[in-house]
Amino acid sequence: MGGGSGRRRISVLGSTGSIGVSTVDLLKQQADSIQVRALVGGKNAALLAEQAKALKAELAVLNDEQHYDELKERLAGTDVKVAAGRQAVIEAGALEADWTMAAITGAAGLAPTLEAVRNGHQVALANKEALVCAGNVMLDAVRHAGAELLPVDSEHNAIVQSLGGADMSLVEKIVLTASGGPFRCSTKEEMAKATPEQALKHPTWSMGAKITIDSASMANKGLEVIEAARLFDLPEHQIDVLVHPQSVVHGMVCFRDGSFVAQMGTADMRIPIAHTLASPTRMQTKCERLDFVKLGQMNFEAVDEERFIPLRLARQVLRAGGVAPTVFSAANEIAVEAFLAGKIRFLGIGELIDASLQAMPENPVPTSLEDVYHWDEMGRELARAQIKRMAAHA
Amino acid sequence: MGGGSGRRRISVLGSTGSIGVSTVDLLKQQADSIQVRALVGGKNAALLAEQAKALKAELAVLNDEQHYDELKERLAGTDVKVAAGRQAVIEAGALEADWTMAAITGAAGLAPTLEAVRNGHQVALANKEALVCAGNVMLDAVRHAGAELLPVDSEHNAIVQSLGGADMSLVEKIVLTASGGPFRCSTKEEMAKATPEQALKHPTWSMGAKITIDSASMANKGLEVIEAARLFDLPEHQIDVLVHPQSVVHGMVCFRDGSFVAQMGTADMRIPIAHTLASPTRMQTKCERLDFVKLGQMNFEAVDEERFIPLRLARQVLRAGGVAPTVFSAANEIAVEAFLAGKIRFLGIGELIDASLQAMPENPVPTSLEDVYHWDEMGRELARAQIKRMAAHA
Repeated sequence: MGGGSGRRRISVLGSTGSIGVSTVDLLKQQADSIQVRALVGGKNAALLAEQAKALKAELAVLNDEQHYDELKERLAGTDVKVAAGRQAVIEAGALEADWTMAAITGAAGLAPTLEAVRNGHQVALANKEALVCAGNVMLDAVRHAGAELLPVDSEHNAIVQSLGGADMSLVEKIVLTASGGPFRCSTKEEMAKATPEQALKHPTWSMGAKITIDSASMANKGLEVIEAARLFDLPEHQIDVLVHPQSVVHGMVCFRDGSFVAQMGTADMRIPIAHTLASPTRMQTKCERLDFVKLGQMNFEAVDEERFIPLRLARQVLRAGGVAPTVFSAANEIAVEAFLAGKIRFLGIGELIDASLQAMPENPVPTSLEDVYHWDEMGRELARAQIKRMAAHA
Repeated sequence: MGGGSGRRRISVLGSTGSIGVSTVDLLKQQADSIQVRALVGGKNAALLAEQAKALKAELAVLNDEQHYDELKERLAGTDVKVAAGRQAVIEAGALEADWTMAAITGAAGLAPTLEAVRNGHQVALANKEALVCAGNVMLDAVRHAGAELLPVDSEHNAIVQSLGGADMSLVEKIVLTASGGPFRCSTKEEMAKATPEQALKHPTWSMGAKITIDSASMANKGLEVIEAARLFDLPEHQIDVLVHPQSVVHGMVCFRDGSFVAQMGTADMRIPIAHTLASPTRMQTKCERLDFVKLGQMNFEAVDEERFIPLRLARQVLRAGGVAPTVFSAANEIAVEAFLAGKIRFLGIGELIDASLQAMPENPVPTSLEDVYHWDEMGRELARAQIKRMAAHA
C-alpha cells in the first residue's frame, strides 16, 4: 500500500486511450480507497482534464505540448498539477506508485514503462513493445526492482488467470487463441488481392487501424507469442496458437498432468484490467457476463502459417532472439502503413518483414532503450528501403 | 509426509473399481516414493492381489468375505497382510495415511471414508454419497480433523482447478457441465416411452448402468449440484448447470470481476485423479491431451428442468436441507432399479423420487452415520411403497 494516507497509489500512463478509459472507469468505482498520482494522456486535453477531476489526480500530463495551455485552462482552480511533453511523461512514469497502468502504445511507451518498472511495484502492462522490442531490458529492470508485471492483453491475462499461481515447471504448453480475423476462410489468392477496407473488418473486436491490420495478418498474434515467451519464460515451441473465431476463450494452459485450464469472457477489456487492478484478489465489476447458452457454439481450427506469414516470422525471430523481434515489430509498422496507403498488397506485409529481417547486418542483444530505439529505426529503414525496391520492380 | 521411511503413505479404498484401477495406474508411476498402506477391493481377489503385489501394499482387504481364501492364496509368500469383511474395510480406512482415495461407491463407502477423513490428511473423494447423504457429518469431521477433501468427480475437480486457490468470496457462481445424455434432444413424450436400452446409451462416458441412467435422467447432475454446494459452501442459486454435449469443459467458475475460468480435458479419469494425487502441485501423466482442432466445436445449451425432473428435485432438496438429499439419493436408487427391471417408465424415476420426498414424515438434520443409514433405508421404503401404489393403479 504505502503512502501516508494508507490509500493505494495509482498512475495511468495512456489514460485517454481505449485501455486508459476502461481503467479510469474501474478506478472511479474505488475512488475512495485510491490516491491517483499521475494521469498521462496523448493530446486529448478535454478528456484528460475530466478524468483528473473525477479521480482527484495529483498530476495530469499530456504528451503533446501543443495542448498544454488547453489542459491548464481546463484544470484551473483545481489542485491538479499540469505538465506536458515527452520528458514530463517519463517523469510521470517515475512517480512512486503501488500500481501503474502502462498503456502508452508503441515506442513512446517504452521509457515511461521502464520508469514505472524501476519503481518496483505492480505494473499492468498494455504496451506490447515493452516486451517484444525491449524484452530483456524490461525484464532485467523487473528483476532488479522486484516489480510485478501484470499483462493486460486479454490472451496473456488469460494465461495468468489460468495458471492460478502455479509454477511454470508444471506447464506443458500455453495456448493463445486468435479470432482468425477477416481472412480466416480466405485463400492465399484472395488474401493477395485484399483491400485495406476488407482487412479493416475485424469480426469480433473493435480496435484501431494498426492493430486491426495486425489481427488480419496475424502479426499481432506473432507479437503476442513473443510477448508470452518473455512474460512466462517459455521457449517458442511451448506456445501454441489456436484459431477460435468467437474469441470467447482468451487463452489456456495445458498442465503436465493433461488438464487444460482456460479463461473466458466477453470482449470487454475492463475484465482483464480489473484482474490486474485487484491482483491477487478480484474486484466486483458490472461487465456483461458471458452467456454460454446465447453463445451456443465455440469453434477451433488450426492456424495456417503459410497464409499468415507474419506469425511464422514471429516464431522465427523469437528463436533468433537479439534485436530480431525489434526489427520485426518496426518493419511490420512500416508495412502496415504502406498497405493502408495502397503502396503494397496485403501479403506484401509478411514479405516486407521477411526481407527486412534478411537484410539485418547483425543481431546483437539490446542492453538499453537506446539500443532498442536504434534497432527500431534500423527496422523502419530496412523496410522503407525494401518498399522502394519493390516499387522499382513493379 | 510422515512415516519412518519418508515416503508418502497412500491407501486406496475401492481399488478394484474403475476409479481405483486408474488410481493404481498412476501410483505405479511413483512406486519408489510411496508406501502403500491399504488397498481395499470389493470381491475381485485376482485384481486386488495383482495390485497389492505391484505396489508392495502392507494390507489388502476385500469387502466380500467369500473371496478371502482366494485372496490369501494369491498373496501367499508375499509380505502383504490379508483381511476381509465390512469391519476390516472400515479398519483399513482408519489406517494412518497421507493420501487416501475414497472410491467405494454407495452407502458402503460412508464409514471407511469417514475414518479416512478422521485421520486428518488428504482424502480424494470419489464417493458421491459421502457429501450428498452424509454432508454435515462428513464436513464436521473434515473441520475437526483438519483434513483436506479433494474431489475426484470431473466436474468438481474442474471447479477446484478453476479456482486456483481463490477464496470463495471472489466467486459469483460455479457452472457444472452436463453432456445432456441420450435424451438431450428428446421430447418429454419420447422420454416417457424410453426403454432401458435407450437410456443406457450414454454419448460420451462409458460407465456402469446405475450412473448411466442417472446421467440420462440428470439425477446424477442433481447429486453433483448437492455435492458442489457442500464442497464449496455455496447456496443452490450460485450453482449453474450447463448442457455441453462434448463433455470437454468439465466445470467453470465465474468470478465477481466477470472472468470465467474453466478446466477442460479428455474423458480420462486419470486426469482429475492425478490432480488430487499431486495437489497442490501437478504430476506428469501420459493421458491423451485434448486436441482442440480435432474436436473442432463445442456446444452449449440451457438445461430443461421440466424434462429432467430429478435435477429440479435435487435443487429442491438442497434448499430443504436435512435428510431430504439422503431420501432423494435412496429413492433414486430404487427408482433406477425399478426402471431397469421394467417396473416403471423412464419419467417415473422423477415422479417416484418426488412422491417419496413428499411422503417424508419429517426432515431432521442427520448428526451421525446411523441417522444417515436410517434415512437411506427410509427413502428406499418410501420409494418401494410408491412403486406398489403405482402398480396397484396401473
